[in-house]
Amino acid sequence: MNIALAGLGNMGRPMADRLLDRGFPLTVTNRTRERADPLIAKGALWANSPKEAAENAAVFATVLSDDSAVLSLLRGGGVLDALPKGAIHVSLSTISVAASKILEEEHSRRGQGYVSAPVFGRPDAVVAGRLRVLCAGDPASVDIVLPVLEALGSKVFRLGDSPPVANLVKLSGNFMIGSALEALGESFSLVQKAGVDPALFLEIINDALFRSPLYENYGNIMAEKRYEPAGFTMDLGLKDIRLVLDAAEALRVPLPLAGVIRDSLLAGLARGRHPLDWSALVLSHYDRAGIS
Amino acid sequence: MNIALAGLGNMGRPMADRLLDRGFPLTVTNRTRERADPLIAKGALWANSPKEAAENAAVFATVLSDDSAVLSLLRGGGVLDALPKGAIHVSLSTISVAASKILEEEHSRRGQGYVSAPVFGRPDAVVAGRLRVLCAGDPASVDIVLPVLEALGSKVFRLGDSPPVANLVKLSGNFMIGSALEALGESFSLVQKAGVDPALFLEIINDALFRSPLYENYGNIMAEKRYEPAGFTMDLGLKDIRLVLDAAEALRVPLPLAGVIRDSLLAGLARGRHPLDWSALVLSHYDRAGIS
Amino acid sequence: MNIALAGLGNMGRPMADRLLDRGFPLTVTNRTRERADPLIAKGALWANSPKEAAENAAVFATVLSDDSAVLSLLRGGGVLDALPKGAIHVSLSTISVAASKILEEEHSRRGQGYVSAPVFGRPDAVVAGRLRVLCAGDPASVDIVLPVLEALGSKVFRLGDSPPVANLVKLSGNFMIGSALEALGESFSLVQKAGVDPALFLEIINDALFRSPLYENYGNIMAEKRYEPAGFTMDLGLKDIRLVLDAAEALRVPLPLAGVIRDSLLAGLARGRHPLDWSALVLSHYDRAGIS
Amino acid sequence: MNIALAGLGNMGRPMADRLLDRGFPLTVTNRTRERADPLIAKGALWANSPKEAAENAAVFATVLSDDSAVLSLLRGGGVLDALPKGAIHVSLSTISVAASKILEEEHSRRGQGYVSAPVFGRPDAVVAGRLRVLCAGDPASVDIVLPVLEALGSKVFRLGDSPPVANLVKLSGNFMIGSALEALGESFSLVQKAGVDPALFLEIINDALFRSPLYENYGNIMAEKRYEPAGFTMDLGLKDIRLVLDAAEALRVPLPLAGVIRDSLLAGLARGRHPLDWSALVLSHYDRAGIS
Repeated sequence: MNIALAGLGNMGRPMADRLLDRGFPLTVTNRTRERADPLIAKGALWANSPKEAAENAAVFATVLSDDSAVLSLLRGGGVLDALPKGAIHVSLSTISVAASKILEEEHSRRGQGYVSAPVFGRPDAVVAGRLRVLCAGDPASVDIVLPVLEALGSKVFRLGDSPPVANLVKLSGNFMIGSALEALGESFSLVQKAGVDPALFLEIINDALFRSPLYENYGNIMAEKRYEPAGFTMDLGLKDIRLVLDAAEALRVPLPLAGVIRDSLLAGLARGRHPLDWSALVLSHYDRAGIS
Repeated sequence: MNIALAGLGNMGRPMADRLLDRGFPLTVTNRTRERADPLIAKGALWANSPKEAAENAAVFATVLSDDSAVLSLLRGGGVLDALPKGAIHVSLSTISVAASKILEEEHSRRGQGYVSAPVFGRPDAVVAGRLRVLCAGDPASVDIVLPVLEALGSKVFRLGDSPPVANLVKLSGNFMIGSALEALGESFSLVQKAGVDPALFLEIINDALFRSPLYENYGNIMAEKRYEPAGFTMDLGLKDIRLVLDAAEALRVPLPLAGVIRDSLLAGLARGRHPLDWSALVLSHYDRAGIS
Repeated sequence: MNIALAGLGNMGRPMADRLLDRGFPLTVTNRTRERADPLIAKGALWANSPKEAAENAAVFATVLSDDSAVLSLLRGGGVLDALPKGAIHVSLSTISVAASKILEEEHSRRGQGYVSAPVFGRPDAVVAGRLRVLCAGDPASVDIVLPVLEALGSKVFRLGDSPPVANLVKLSGNFMIGSALEALGESFSLVQKAGVDPALFLEIINDALFRSPLYENYGNIMAEKRYEPAGFTMDLGLKDIRLVLDAAEALRVPLPLAGVIRDSLLAGLARGRHPLDWSALVLSHYDRAGIS
Repeated sequence: MNIALAGLGNMGRPMADRLLDRGFPLTVTNRTRERADPLIAKGALWANSPKEAAENAAVFATVLSDDSAVLSLLRGGGVLDALPKGAIHVSLSTISVAASKILEEEHSRRGQGYVSAPVFGRPDAVVAGRLRVLCAGDPASVDIVLPVLEALGSKVFRLGDSPPVANLVKLSGNFMIGSALEALGESFSLVQKAGVDPALFLEIINDALFRSPLYENYGNIMAEKRYEPAGFTMDLGLKDIRLVLDAAEALRVPLPLAGVIRDSLLAGLARGRHPLDWSALVLSHYDRAGIS
């Protein structure tokens, strides 16, 4: 089974690495070839273009930054037309529900398979094998790509036949994180204005209530004001919250809390905080509460 | 050191039990005497009224349901005037910041100590010794009551000189829980309308993101619709969210997320859901999204 | 029919003036006597205390600033006990629904009448006879005081038997104004950041859409930054929005827009804008949008 | 000066009629020719396609429903390439700020003029000459089309050089209307649950506060439950609120009230109310407050 992987960014490269380590025959392609060198040294083949990579692929994986990157590679890059009938596109990127629907239709029209497989985890989680992989698509296609997905992370969650559903779940997960950030941001403002050290507040609520490493990590970033380097920037945070709101609108589901997060992020971006980690939305609350 | 404890409800009784087990000399009082019988059998003294209990107490602990219960026991019940100069009132109830300020002033005027010591945990946590105790008040008073507080739970967090600050932190903790419920409620609506089983969604986000027993417990109540018996009713939830909003208003801190939770709870109460667990606010989201 | 009026502030004095001009026999009382001098010169009698004023009154009108002013005058000031059986208290102040309920019970218990009659309009509207008067209470009492109310303004709206309902309608009216301010504040931020003069935007929407003097007046205050002298301060605005939210909570009605207004006012108050007109909530939006 | 007008819907037809009445030489085009017959009878020329209409036009006006109608007519319909250099496209439709930016760039690249001229008013306002016309674009182009715009309505507001600004102002105006609807919807729920007839409440606040025909009209639709036939459907309302939120996001301006309106509309659409007038968002509030 020939596997091609397009996109050797922070996520794509360690993914390719894992596939090679597990013995999958892999062709890689990327905007710049240098990022492929260590992979080629380990046995990966190089394709000069996504189109070339697609031509011989049984499974074509994309690990790209957003809707426009995926759609332009598939359309303008010629992958849609080059990919053989019966081959399967596995999209590992965090893209919108709407873009996933477009991909579903385009591939279906051409007799190609399409599995939506967004992941939870950052590059270090890929390396450590702690990635969580969602997947949805027609069961036969999912069965075929499952060994690949299992090679990428510690767990694969199957979410049924409809590919865009996996994207919705991924975005909803990011909304859940954003909600925790918003809650931390608001309560930090409140207790801080009352003279309580947010670090102590965090210790208390995580010991007494949440016992969650995610609350601990993000809360500590806020308490220690370590917004750089950003794990996930405010700009990207806003993008994902918007995608959740768009998906919810299409389904006719009001999400007032997502609207609140959106406003907190926008207020931060209005002050030029785009390069900061999205946990810096706590600063929007400090501003509003008059905490300097 | 004579300790008196007023209020033998679901929280007060196991607390009294722990104090007796640890050898503290204890006088108890309660609206109805029957609830005191097992404690008396273990060596507790009985006082016919809070006033009588207060007269000989070095430490007077209250474990009551709300502001009005505490204030009427202290004022109408005559405790304020009966408590000896130098004795210390330890308030273990979840009361408002404003009520705590009133108590601070009333005790200070009479030369009595006042330690605010709200707790995190339910009755089973008291029994299991897993209670977390906050405390704030003048350091000398806190030092005196510290052995009592340490006997009540597994950890005591000192929050400085100002008693109402402990109440603010307790209420902020409940606001954090409410925020998690709101986030779960909104995302459950979203994924459910897209055809995803909320139980599976919960499994994914708790495995991939939160790893929090609190998310697991509340999420499972929602996924399994086990809103009764309520661990904490919607009515009580609304009361605490209102107290947070009131405290934040006094400090001039906007809390938009608290406002969102408030509206979700009100929508549930408008449909007669007051006896349900406050995690039933997910139903408000199902209603709004047209999920039956 | 002896009429007494307590409270000769900015609203009470011109009201008393109108009643004298229309030939009503009037006794006035106030914290400081000087404010009564011009009224006494026109024939008003002076009472040294609210209690004294109440003793001979058939109708006892109060024009005070808030709940606590009204309740302390009625209770601590002894009016409740001094007012004859069958006499009627007419409350013209903007007070809470809850306080109005307390007054209803207290008067009913003593065989006194109680008519809730909050008004729309500022002191200049009283002088110009453009005041609008709401009223609610038992019909017999309302019939008796109607000539007095009609003397005070241009229109009297009867709202049924239950006095607190008039307070709810008055507060809801203020909520409607606050909503218009919030909408103007948000849209001014938006168009201003796009380079459009808010004054021109205001001219357009009021010409094309609203044709409302209220939008024109408040919009011009915002566009010209004339927040002082305040017609109605941010502090008072916040108080009334809180009273609306409290009344809505008691009735189990979510009011998300009231929550948004509350947060805008709080953000302004967090920056020390309490003496400004409440239309200065537009500044909270400029702050958040990064407009200097 | 040859004028072409594409789009003979409810707005376009009476606009064409006014231009003919005022003696402008007019070519019309539309998906179906029948709608053009009365205009042709009055002297209008017919073009078989937008492209044909564009070829000889000095001014090319579009009166279409949304972004996609305008963009597909301009691009797929070939208008962009057919319109002579120096000719001016006048866009009278309510489209997004983003679409207006695209048009600005496309026309500029081809040496064509582009004037953005969205309008306030419904078909009856066109007929009665009460339309308000916004306009923005390079001053030379605006000067040329000004007589046409003045012929269409009672007032033309010039908003500077940048065409998308006129779209932003138009959308912000619709946001202001939506805000009034939201405020009416929330307060109607509140007073109705307290037993007050919304019609009476509306009479009071419009008499005492707003004095606005817009509040009167929309309030009466709500009070009388006359949501059909819709003047402007919930679907269209949601579309415009989304366009405002999108434009505000691009400018980094939080609009919490727009988010609240969005949720009220979504809740209505979740219950199948898309064909109703957007003032039917009051029903979302009745639902939430448990009013049947």
